[in-house]
Amino acid sequence: MANLFDNLEMPAAADFHVHLRDGPMMEAVTPTIRQGGVDTVFVMPNLVPPLTTVQAVLDYKKRLQAIEPNVNYLMSLYLHPSITPDTIREADEAGIAGVKSYPAGVTTNSSSGVVDYESFYPVFAAMEEADMVLNLHGEAPPSSPTNTDPTQQVTILNAEETFLPTLKSLHERFPKLRIILEHCTTAAAVNAVRQCGPNVAGTITAHHLFLTIDDWAGDPINFCKPVAKLPSDRVALLKAATSGDPKFFFGSDSAPHLLSAKKGLSDGGLGAGKCAAGVFTQPNVVGFVLEALEGAVQLGIAKKEDLSQEKVEGFLGGHGRKFYGVPESSANIRVKAEGVNVQNVRVGGAGNSEGGMSETVVTFRSGKPTYAVESV
Amino acid sequence: MANLFDNLEMPAAADFHVHLRDGPMMEAVTPTIRQGGVDTVFVMPNLVPPLTTVQAVLDYKKRLQAIEPNVNYLMSLYLHPSITPDTIREADEAGIAGVKSYPAGVTTNSSSGVVDYESFYPVFAAMEEADMVLNLHGEAPPSSPTNTDPTQQVTILNAEETFLPTLKSLHERFPKLRIILEHCTTAAAVNAVRQCGPNVAGTITAHHLFLTIDDWAGDPINFCKPVAKLPSDRVALLKAATSGDPKFFFGSDSAPHLLSAKKGLSDGGLGAGKCAAGVFTQPNVVGFVLEALEGAVQLGIAKKEDLSQEKVEGFLGGHGRKFYGVPESSANIRVKAEGVNVQNVRVGGAGNSEGGMSETVVTFRSGKPTYAVESV
Repeated sequence: MANLFDNLEMPAAADFHVHLRDGPMMEAVTPTIRQGGVDTVFVMPNLVPPLTTVQAVLDYKKRLQAIEPNVNYLMSLYLHPSITPDTIREADEAGIAGVKSYPAGVTTNSSSGVVDYESFYPVFAAMEEADMVLNLHGEAPPSSPTNTDPTQQVTILNAEETFLPTLKSLHERFPKLRIILEHCTTAAAVNAVRQCGPNVAGTITAHHLFLTIDDWAGDPINFCKPVAKLPSDRVALLKAATSGDPKFFFGSDSAPHLLSAKKGLSDGGLGAGKCAAGVFTQPNVVGFVLEALEGAVQLGIAKKEDLSQEKVEGFLGGHGRKFYGVPESSANIRVKAEGVNVQNVRVGGAGNSEGGMSETVVTFRSGKPTYAVESV
Repeated sequence: MANLFDNLEMPAAADFHVHLRDGPMMEAVTPTIRQGGVDTVFVMPNLVPPLTTVQAVLDYKKRLQAIEPNVNYLMSLYLHPSITPDTIREADEAGIAGVKSYPAGVTTNSSSGVVDYESFYPVFAAMEEADMVLNLHGEAPPSSPTNTDPTQQVTILNAEETFLPTLKSLHERFPKLRIILEHCTTAAAVNAVRQCGPNVAGTITAHHLFLTIDDWAGDPINFCKPVAKLPSDRVALLKAATSGDPKFFFGSDSAPHLLSAKKGLSDGGLGAGKCAAGVFTQPNVVGFVLEALEGAVQLGIAKKEDLSQEKVEGFLGGHGRKFYGVPESSANIRVKAEGVNVQNVRVGGAGNSEGGMSETVVTFRSGKPTYAVESV
């Protein structure tokens, strides 16, 4: 069991990439934000249908605040052909923090996403002027099935690296636009973020600090997009997270799905369908990140002095708060090494006390011990 | 729908790598051998417990013959520390065709497998003398969790390529030993087999002619070990299968698991367990291979003349029968393009007519059309 951070006291963390869903799922997962040690979240707009109007985003924020008022919800619009420069100005005035771009068809609820970035240049120009953040799901879409050169195909392994020239070209064309490459999973992505100017940053999830390809092959609970890559990529993420470089900060991409969906049992037939992509970490995010950073020392990837309170606080909130221009947290948390065991989350709540596969969201590292986090 | 092979008449195929299991699963899948267009099979010994004695192998063969007598069952021993040169001589006299080597912990029922090849050199020498075939599951075992250099780790992606020096060193030390690199999945493996002498051959499955990494990520039905790799690897397999090179022939690695096990629901708990590795192709193997070869022409990987009857018959049986020294088939099959839809297999058979997840083996490409195969 990890213990390096026993009794660490620090500002509540900020999580710059969360999926809180809607309806009963939202009601179940929103209360786990504070439980995980976080008081500021950047909320993804990929509901069904996606949040493509300012009013829809503001309505969603109210629903979230009604469940847990003690969280600072940074909201985002879903980049979509219906969004114009006027929408951006309206969003900015309404206090919306960012615009999320999903390449069409790449991950959960991305079917309404972007096919061609050039058509959005006027929108990006308006964002640059309004100083709004562009959040990129940085994966190239899968190759067309009619691609006749199978050696040139985009796979889940190279989709992120294949996207990086797009990141660089957007940054060159809109140098003052603040851009985040969400959920970096490769050494190549980390390098690309470093090579760009200070207006480009990258978020890193908790689960990608733990996982490599072997961990999700045959284990739907650990399956997400972008997929966890090679051990050398994980090393690059751990080094970035312990570097103190303000270009890297935490965004969990915590993505709740019912266990039945994670197992691909929701197709209405025999149950041989595909598994939903997404790893749910929200109830224990701070504990997971601290465990992973401590693991980096044990693996010889980082030194103990890389885990100074300043660096850990920077990765878990300070860097991101500065990038987004949101105030420091006034809430504090304390970490305890005696720990807790990771629990699953129940959706709905009626019926028997255990909850079945269609009522349960399995948390990452379910049943394993991790740091306990308490508000102080 | 594929139609290039409509009305093709050829000898019944030989499948040089099948998993027929035991008990009710064996009773369900053994009758699908002939149905798939095959009359000769090389049977894997990874039962629970594994078949490590000559008597156990012969008893198993009798159980298979009792279910379907019109198949030529080539049997194998499971390489294990209890096997001595005497066991090999006894096996040879009893007509056992090969010895299967599983690296410990690499795939289904491999926990009793090989850790160190050198300790088996006397066994390999006896096999070379008896002219028995060594069947290698060619993957290096996963890295130890205490490996402190994560950039040097073995993953499911590089496990096969990492194993190839072992193949070459065994071939150099025992040049007369006939060795098969089972279920090649990479361009590197295909090249290694080509570089070795004529006593080294490689088998190729039907599903690896179709799948790449994107097809099994999030789809447990397509998940197997070795995992399907990159599009460029699939191209290399299709080229080898259409090359006419006698070093490459068909071995389906058809591996039945109940759907509940494929989905990782067999852990007795909530159902968040890991998915069984293996793709079940037996009932339609010849149809699948023909479809894949035809697809290679459509993708521009092979030319129509690469699909001559001689080459197709060679890959589907002739090459392997020569390598193993088994007679040509006297049974013939005919392929029909009007086709059939791929059906699942029911285990047990009591209860309702549909069968639930714990009674059903889902067949690869279930529900899709493929060539019909009939005995003539």
